[in-house]
Amino acid sequence: MTTTENHHTPNILKIGQMSHTKRKRTCTGWKVEASDIARNTFNPIRSIVDGMKLSPNPAKEMIALSIGDPTVFGNLSVPEEAEVALIKALKQRKYNGYGPSTGYEQARAAVAEYSSTSKSNVNAKDVILTSGCSGALDLCITCLANPGQNILIPRPGFSIYKTLAESIGVHARHYNLQPEKSWEVDLPHLESLIDDDTAAIIVNSPSNPCGSVYSKEHLLDILKIADRNKVPIIADEIYEHFVFSGSEYHPMASLTDSVPILSVSGLTKRFLVPGWRLGWIVINDRNNIFQDEVRHGLQCLSQKILGPNTLIQAAIPDILKNTPRSFYSDTLEFIESNAKLCHETISKIPGLKPVMPQGAMYMMIGIDMAHFPEYLNDVQFTEALVSEQSVFCLPAKCFEYPNYFRVVLTVPQAKLVEACQRITEFCSTHYRTDSEIPDCRYIRNEAYDESWIE
Amino acid sequence: MTTTENHHTPNILKIGQMSHTKRKRTCTGWKVEASDIARNTFNPIRSIVDGMKLSPNPAKEMIALSIGDPTVFGNLSVPEEAEVALIKALKQRKYNGYGPSTGYEQARAAVAEYSSTSKSNVNAKDVILTSGCSGALDLCITCLANPGQNILIPRPGFSIYKTLAESIGVHARHYNLQPEKSWEVDLPHLESLIDDDTAAIIVNSPSNPCGSVYSKEHLLDILKIADRNKVPIIADEIYEHFVFSGSEYHPMASLTDSVPILSVSGLTKRFLVPGWRLGWIVINDRNNIFQDEVRHGLQCLSQKILGPNTLIQAAIPDILKNTPRSFYSDTLEFIESNAKLCHETISKIPGLKPVMPQGAMYMMIGIDMAHFPEYLNDVQFTEALVSEQSVFCLPAKCFEYPNYFRVVLTVPQAKLVEACQRITEFCSTHYRTDSEIPDCRYIRNEAYDESWIE
Ligand SMILES: Cc1ncc(COP(=O)(O)O)c(C=O)c1O
Ligand SMILES: Cc1ncc(COP(=O)(O)O)c(C=O)c1O
Repeated sequence: MTTTENHHTPNILKIGQMSHTKRKRTCTGWKVEASDIARNTFNPIRSIVDGMKLSPNPAKEMIALSIGDPTVFGNLSVPEEAEVALIKALKQRKYNGYGPSTGYEQARAAVAEYSSTSKSNVNAKDVILTSGCSGALDLCITCLANPGQNILIPRPGFSIYKTLAESIGVHARHYNLQPEKSWEVDLPHLESLIDDDTAAIIVNSPSNPCGSVYSKEHLLDILKIADRNKVPIIADEIYEHFVFSGSEYHPMASLTDSVPILSVSGLTKRFLVPGWRLGWIVINDRNNIFQDEVRHGLQCLSQKILGPNTLIQAAIPDILKNTPRSFYSDTLEFIESNAKLCHETISKIPGLKPVMPQGAMYMMIGIDMAHFPEYLNDVQFTEALVSEQSVFCLPAKCFEYPNYFRVVLTVPQAKLVEACQRITEFCSTHYRTDSEIPDCRYIRNEAYDESWIE
Repeated sequence: MTTTENHHTPNILKIGQMSHTKRKRTCTGWKVEASDIARNTFNPIRSIVDGMKLSPNPAKEMIALSIGDPTVFGNLSVPEEAEVALIKALKQRKYNGYGPSTGYEQARAAVAEYSSTSKSNVNAKDVILTSGCSGALDLCITCLANPGQNILIPRPGFSIYKTLAESIGVHARHYNLQPEKSWEVDLPHLESLIDDDTAAIIVNSPSNPCGSVYSKEHLLDILKIADRNKVPIIADEIYEHFVFSGSEYHPMASLTDSVPILSVSGLTKRFLVPGWRLGWIVINDRNNIFQDEVRHGLQCLSQKILGPNTLIQAAIPDILKNTPRSFYSDTLEFIESNAKLCHETISKIPGLKPVMPQGAMYMMIGIDMAHFPEYLNDVQFTEALVSEQSVFCLPAKCFEYPNYFRVVLTVPQAKLVEACQRITEFCSTHYRTDSEIPDCRYIRNEAYDESWIE
């Protein structure tokens, strides 16, 4: 040995006397490359949207139905109780210093109480506070999977799962959701994807982009697959409690005694504070399957960044306790009425197929591309919708799901009505009936289907 | 192919019809392991301190000189202007939503102005806001180095460099600092460590744990080595402007036209808000060496967590503009007078060798272990100091530097005086003169030196 420094067992006596006979640097000028992790970190939404030609019609005010940020239009806003709690924390001048890297005990205890159900009892020690739910997902994926292993993620699904996984060389395998069954998981397909290298299944309910809320039975079916194959679950429940009338929210961890689950959530959506970057992981592990390694691993990983903002942490107990029920129900009623309104209008448009959501803040709308022969795909369709009608919807290519687009339901109602009218107008201009469709269209379709997703 | 799903070019036509003939899962019960990254993420301070027997003398109130958090004693506190700025941002209700993942333009512009010097002009586009300076270091190391490559870090040095590097399989190679030269870098040693796999040199001035502030000449010498070997620099300047009278702070980027530098800093130390988790990277790259890959890579990596807390971001322009000079000078005067006081007292103690700092908030104190034969090393020495005198100083093992300990200089003066008295008492009890030292001591010393760092 000793041509390279052995960094694990440095020999103190030799400090400063080490002889370095290793390959010297060959200097031919500056050449600094980005690492593989940096190169593999890739947000498809950003690159798809950046690649789009978005030039709104100057005669019409732009309406963006694309942004999953409920605060952008100003109609939905943080609960006053949260502002009060934050100012209180600030004034106390006790929460400007470092906290424990997993979060203040009292904040974790409050999240534990908030996340407990009659069937799953959570303690402060089971909670890790993170920088947003994205930070929680990053920790979970990084802790569970090695490069070369795979995690199973929904298609259509939130893009960050793949971004985080592939960033560290973990493969993202997509299991199919079924629009005709309110986006339930294609269970046989899910199970067929599992192999010895499967490190976790990510389940997202209520879901982005689908707005689906899984029934207890369906969640139990998913859990059965996880149990049979001994694959842990990462339950992305950032939209917890965000369900419309007639649906019920079931935290996955409340439905199993055997499958270990890392549930992730945060203040982001329910409290309308995406920018506060406060998320959490709840370790649900009744049989101590995570005990030895994963719990410790998550704690170690949290030390890389030293926890989320301490003022927000300090405000958590008050935020969770004092926010009145009416705040939640007002938000939900508003979104649900938008969902109904949007679904009703869009349903009437020939060539579009909206799928009614049961929760969250999104709706997916299918495009019968054959009837819009001017456009090759959802990206071109939504581009044209911007140019003509100044309405921007996210093409579902962003969620690895072609020929759909996603509408955000948190915009003010008047804007949504206006947007739906403009979409109606756009479609009536461009819709072609069966007899109007040029024959070659079907050929184009196939060519497109095979090549457009890179 | 097609025994595994090719995730790069999914064939849309086949969704749901894919045949998965790959190795099925072999289920013999639950066994969930932590990933290599999780296992390799390791904070030495935590594990050393957790491993110590810390039982204070119940007759004496505990004084912790160990914590690098200037806010813990309540004597140093966030500038009022920062509180005002934060409340203003909150009240405006415009900063609760998602910001760009690299940070708000106006916040980045304010940091750019704050970080510009007459010789290095920084623009908003050169700034990336992060979750603390730790987050900035994480992004820089992750972006520059691949597993198997190495980065050069100071010994003694802040432990997070190694934690972050080894977490992702990057080797941390220590270059020596020289206590007898106010902790200047051993330049030949530094250069001897560079090879083809060296991805970056981390330079920390003003420094933790040394409190050293490098002269312009010394920084130029380091830059020469970087330039000659074409190795970029990560300049950890979280203690920027934190220099005592007689020393001058030179941002590294102001001293070179050729070496590309990622400078990292944040609000943490100067504004006494470690918990706010607001750090930044400034890309200094006059010759566009980082342009193609590194800049883009850093931006992509910032998308994993979506930026730091937006309220703090929104407050940055006011914080940087409105905090009065007196706030900085008051803090510095206080720390400097503590430094002098501590140095003066400790200098008089036989067996201890304090090294006077020129900035930051720490002092390193050497222990002449041969004269304290009861203790094998700095860990045992500081343990005993806790048991007898209820004074806790961090053993420099935490900084990979044996036989020193670090004192934090931000404690209230009365406490520091008391602590120094107790250290004096402790040493006078345990100090042995040359003639009192048992012969076997020297043998023990060697045995210890070879084995104690794992
Ligand atoms: C399903 C899902 N998970 C996680 C997140 C990330 O949440 P955060 O902003 O807390 O990081 C989002 C944000 O849109 C989401 O839709
Ligand atoms: C040298 C050095 N760099 C970076 C940091 C981390 O700073 P932050 O708390 O902003 O992550 C510290 C904290 O003590 C430090 O001493």
